[in-house]
Amino acid sequence: MSQLTSREIRLISRPDGEPTPQNFELAHVTYDDPSPGMVQVRNYWMSVDPYMRGRMYDRPSYVPPFGLGETLQGHAIGEVIASGDTDFAVGDIVTHMLGWREIAQGPKALFTKVDTHGIALQAFLGVMGMPGMTAYCGFLEICTPKAGETVFVSGAAGAVGSLVCQIAKLKGCNVVASCGSEAKAAWLKSVGVDEVINYKTAPNLLKAVQSCAHQGIDMYFDNVGGEHLEVALEVARVGARFAECGMISQYNATRPTSGPKNLINVIGKSLKIQGFIVSNFAHLHAQFVEEMGGWIKSGDIKWEETIMTGIDKAPAAFIGLFNGVNAGKMLVKLS
Amino acid sequence: MSQLTSREIRLISRPDGEPTPQNFELAHVTYDDPSPGMVQVRNYWMSVDPYMRGRMYDRPSYVPPFGLGETLQGHAIGEVIASGDTDFAVGDIVTHMLGWREIAQGPKALFTKVDTHGIALQAFLGVMGMPGMTAYCGFLEICTPKAGETVFVSGAAGAVGSLVCQIAKLKGCNVVASCGSEAKAAWLKSVGVDEVINYKTAPNLLKAVQSCAHQGIDMYFDNVGGEHLEVALEVARVGARFAECGMISQYNATRPTSGPKNLINVIGKSLKIQGFIVSNFAHLHAQFVEEMGGWIKSGDIKWEETIMTGIDKAPAAFIGLFNGVNAGKMLVKLS
Repeated sequence: MSQLTSREIRLISRPDGEPTPQNFELAHVTYDDPSPGMVQVRNYWMSVDPYMRGRMYDRPSYVPPFGLGETLQGHAIGEVIASGDTDFAVGDIVTHMLGWREIAQGPKALFTKVDTHGIALQAFLGVMGMPGMTAYCGFLEICTPKAGETVFVSGAAGAVGSLVCQIAKLKGCNVVASCGSEAKAAWLKSVGVDEVINYKTAPNLLKAVQSCAHQGIDMYFDNVGGEHLEVALEVARVGARFAECGMISQYNATRPTSGPKNLINVIGKSLKIQGFIVSNFAHLHAQFVEEMGGWIKSGDIKWEETIMTGIDKAPAAFIGLFNGVNAGKMLVKLS
Repeated sequence: MSQLTSREIRLISRPDGEPTPQNFELAHVTYDDPSPGMVQVRNYWMSVDPYMRGRMYDRPSYVPPFGLGETLQGHAIGEVIASGDTDFAVGDIVTHMLGWREIAQGPKALFTKVDTHGIALQAFLGVMGMPGMTAYCGFLEICTPKAGETVFVSGAAGAVGSLVCQIAKLKGCNVVASCGSEAKAAWLKSVGVDEVINYKTAPNLLKAVQSCAHQGIDMYFDNVGGEHLEVALEVARVGARFAECGMISQYNATRPTSGPKNLINVIGKSLKIQGFIVSNFAHLHAQFVEEMGGWIKSGDIKWEETIMTGIDKAPAAFIGLFNGVNAGKMLVKLS
């Protein structure tokens, strides 16, 4: 019988506003060999994602809150190093939700084998994983793009937004994107985005979007909320579709912020504002894998990664999401 | 050649906040016999509707603003009294948009002949007209009700809301309604609404709705906006559908009011918030006439009317919409 030590990150206090390193602690956990039906995995990569902020509140939601004193969870990818079940062999590459730790061990139902087709492992936490599926399904199913239409994408340099922009171009759309730095803007231009706005330096976001979309927007893919949403409501054309994917500007609010002052546009302009979470579209997973995989192979979809190394950096990686530290997918490399 | 004098209501100043009688003036207009291609109609009934408030602002919208010094427009029903075209004969009953006047005269394309099937004329401005079509299409097409689901209807005693409640009952739904008086509440109960809240006397609207909809709501039909919308976002179940028909609480706002503080629920609960105007559903008009006509004949749909008599009362009737003066459809009887 062998024992393995895993370093793991626990949530020890609920953030009040923006998360801080003091909300987290590093723990050491020891695992025995997996018993029958259990699988033991060495995590190579783990994901930090903005939605995790919501699970740090103690309130009912579509996923239960993280428990205080418990190891956090999230998407990860790794390799089976011991198995108590014939469905999994040592060496299998698997994805799962037992991130924020170096060793993942649990019932086999928690793990999904991945055929990587030669694609880098960490892509299965990004472009080929949850963020990719979020971008693909949210944009195609809710925005229902038609060639020639204009989409406004906020948070466009992030893991999801950067893919929405490129899928929109592949579908023949005109893309107006917002991001928070000149470097991000340059990258977005390099992958074909038509117009990019640096919202941190634009003197007036509404005027900036209006000048990029003279005829208004037919679609809005929202990762940011707040002022961005208000601007989108203002520039929307009649019949525009809004995919509400995220409102990162609101996640750390310590008290409820006021909603968009011009929400009444939803009536006069016959807008559809639809929120979603990626699991709504589970039935489209095979289609996503095939189409996105094809775009990756053909070089039609590009992506950036921001990598921090070591489980002890996971809190900083997570906190960085709210400060625009990441270009593209924020990842933590574990071994 | 004969001449007819028509009394008409003109908009002479744009309301600042709630409209007042001083925004309107009574004018006398003389009409000659209709020339070829023109039709002359004596209006029997005209409609006042909340949406007209929007046309009193000088801003772009889905319909152009009313012109200052010009006779107002709106739905009306009357009888052809002279015709310059063989498509219309004296005695034909017609609906049209040339309300706010005793005589409507214009090109034949502006008039639509109505076969009343013995239904009272004014019903074609209400249950069989634009408000009925709004309720029918907005609820069925956007809320997509299923038997056993719960709908919350705000402004439920109004021309549209009172029909939504009854259509929802016909579709097997549980109906929670809000209105602004005990008399309206009693009427709503009398037509089968399951739970009615008088929002003017309820100490806490959120708690009132929660106590009427223990499992939350699957649909929200919004005529009111403001706090009602915020409450609906709070009590919505995952996947709920919001039909945004009106926000009467906002129409007289002299500056932009803040939107719902909890709009972020649209993501976590995967809500669809869809605005509409009745003309989006023009293709469903024949279906509406058949189904609603059937419900009227079978007695399944009931309605109330609040009637003011004389064109000079039209401004008061309109202003009354914002003070809950009307139960059901507000109408002005012209002759």
